[in-house]
Amino acid sequence: MHALVPFAAERPKTRLATVLSPDERRSFADAMLSDVLSALEEAGFSPRLLATESTGRDVPETVDDRPLTEAVNAALVDHDPSPDRPLAVVAADLALATPAALSWLTADGDVVIAPGRGGGTNALAVRHPGFRVDYHGASYLDHLRRARDVGASVREVDSWRLATDVDEPSDLVEVLVHGEREARDWLVDAGFELETGDGRVDLTRTG
Amino acid sequence: MHALVPFAAERPKTRLATVLSPDERRSFADAMLSDVLSALEEAGFSPRLLATESTGRDVPETVDDRPLTEAVNAALVDHDPSPDRPLAVVAADLALATPAALSWLTADGDVVIAPGRGGGTNALAVRHPGFRVDYHGASYLDHLRRARDVGASVREVDSWRLATDVDEPSDLVEVLVHGEREARDWLVDAGFELETGDGRVDLTRTG
Repeated sequence: MHALVPFAAERPKTRLATVLSPDERRSFADAMLSDVLSALEEAGFSPRLLATESTGRDVPETVDDRPLTEAVNAALVDHDPSPDRPLAVVAADLALATPAALSWLTADGDVVIAPGRGGGTNALAVRHPGFRVDYHGASYLDHLRRARDVGASVREVDSWRLATDVDEPSDLVEVLVHGEREARDWLVDAGFELETGDGRVDLTRTG
Repeated sequence: MHALVPFAAERPKTRLATVLSPDERRSFADAMLSDVLSALEEAGFSPRLLATESTGRDVPETVDDRPLTEAVNAALVDHDPSPDRPLAVVAADLALATPAALSWLTADGDVVIAPGRGGGTNALAVRHPGFRVDYHGASYLDHLRRARDVGASVREVDSWRLATDVDEPSDLVEVLVHGEREARDWLVDAGFELETGDGRVDLTRTG
């Protein structure tokens, strides 16, 4: 299955600004993107970057500097998905994604949807030509509505690894505890450690 | 499979104090508990409450006012789990849990573990007599270590519905978007609504 991976190349992960410098955010976002691309490939997907500017990576790439929703919808129109020609759309910051978790996207359904926290949508597989995305607000609910409006069947993917997009400092704890790839190594190399007192788990940075 | 559901009956959900009164927190925690118990029963489990004081519910109940870790470990010793006699331990605040998600706990493995956010552990199925819990700190990592120490095989359950325990006001958004049972109805009746501007989803309360 083809898999589109939208990536904001120029100023990624602004909500990590309290713990990472702009250069570090770019480097960490690159590591997460590498993890998503390699997990997709291991799961048998053919990934294509949908980047706001050229990344120079050795992976098929479409450059589109429009906002996320418009750029993804243009790609959906261009791909014209059908049951024989599905298109997945997978967020670039799913640092916990494993090939097994991504494989759930290949399940039957005109629209297969992996929710993100806060009403978001972290991954989709689209097999219906009339489906469009809307990433503003509670996109999960909007995507259910859109699927219903065009008569597309929906399947929810119940995966915590796909539900965990990395946006905020507290999300880095998840990467340190459960990450298995480059993004976790990046954080360890940058000096991040878990601080586990008696209560909740916090993050510290040394060195 | 028997399923133990620990429940702090006297002062539940203190981290929701900014949005719910003490009486409301008790009532909302009751609704979540009802959801977990009914989902367990629909999935074929035999639930037993492990409550800090008697709840008066029509469900088998053990009263133990010791801290969570001690009370669960006493129940594990008492049950003496084995492959033929597994014991599940399921948090009472998994308001998104469905029978399908809970059924993953019946998969093979001496210790089947559903992680929670922040390095936590939201649900377990134990088939090994030597396994013990430790809910302090990064319990997920502690539980992996304990399983390794006693030679127990481990299986991770990748379920976002089981990973989502409801502790903080932002978690109520998940219940409103994805809940299907009493806890969602409780929030709606209490006047909570999603506020979806152009960006992230917030919570408002009316009436």
